[in-house]
Amino acid sequence: MRVLGVDPGLTRCGVGVVEGTAGRPLTMVGVGVVRTSSELDTAQRLVAIEQGIEEWLDTHRPGFVAVERVFSQHNVRTVMGTAQASAVAMLCAARRGLPVALHTPSEVKAAVTGSGRADKAQVGAMVTRVLRLTAPPKPADAADALALAICHIWRAPAVNRLQAAHAAARRQGPPTGSVRKVTR
Amino acid sequence: MRVLGVDPGLTRCGVGVVEGTAGRPLTMVGVGVVRTSSELDTAQRLVAIEQGIEEWLDTHRPGFVAVERVFSQHNVRTVMGTAQASAVAMLCAARRGLPVALHTPSEVKAAVTGSGRADKAQVGAMVTRVLRLTAPPKPADAADALALAICHIWRAPAVNRLQAAHAAARRQGPPTGSVRKVTR
Repeated sequence: MRVLGVDPGLTRCGVGVVEGTAGRPLTMVGVGVVRTSSELDTAQRLVAIEQGIEEWLDTHRPGFVAVERVFSQHNVRTVMGTAQASAVAMLCAARRGLPVALHTPSEVKAAVTGSGRADKAQVGAMVTRVLRLTAPPKPADAADALALAICHIWRAPAVNRLQAAHAAARRQGPPTGSVRKVTR
Repeated sequence: MRVLGVDPGLTRCGVGVVEGTAGRPLTMVGVGVVRTSSELDTAQRLVAIEQGIEEWLDTHRPGFVAVERVFSQHNVRTVMGTAQASAVAMLCAARRGLPVALHTPSEVKAAVTGSGRADKAQVGAMVTRVLRLTAPPKPADAADALALAICHIWRAPAVNRLQAAHAAARRQGPPTGSVRKVTR
């Protein structure tokens, strides 16, 4: 499976593509950062992020997208931008019919390092080892995006079973979503 | 000027289009709600919201979009969905080159009722009077979207002067945003 990991942010959106299967050596396909200037309005920054994510999807054609789940415990100002950037990443993926998985930072750290409380350096070191790189990817957002993709591949069997169970439950429940519109 | 107001939310996204100029009677062009089912994944809900907003932009061709500015003081869970829905609304507008303005809930209430602490009923009553409707628009999200559009029209002269000043400052500052990509 080929997974695009996205560590969302308005200023720096880490992106990393990893290919492989749980239990076998994984390969890094690409890593980078979509940056937008703080001089731009938020709306324009979101358009720039959309363009950047679309380029990564076009170039690397992943089959899955893993996005960091945003929590609001963090810094109040930062978290809104992070939520907005993550919305754009999810939108770009779902619009193409790609499955989107959200993983929390501690799930990613635990999957990659064995500890949900690992620091940036430990995550970078494990990403470097797992993908057999010569040095940790910089900046940290890029390494985090690769860690997300690795986490998704390693957790995929469990996550996919859960998603299948949810989908089955939905089929037996009320009809799924609709967009309604009222105009006077 | 014709303004689309958006009161963002994952479950109910209020939308309202108002036409007119500050100091003259305003006209309601349309009002409604884009709904998405909580049975859907967040990513799929964002796609449904994008489709709904795009339909409103296509149908009513507003020249401006006013979106409620999301704060994180509110309920922690709700605010993330609100931030994500607002990101989609801003993205849809900015992608078309439409100016996007953000107004806080208290700015909207103050503009429409004279008090930044007005309740839902007061906002609904003033929207009904200003737009010469026979009854307050329901649900409250739809009335709030119209209030946002009214607020934008009434505040427009001041906001536009500010935006022009910011744009002038930017032209004299460092170069504006860029999207960069690094692939190995």
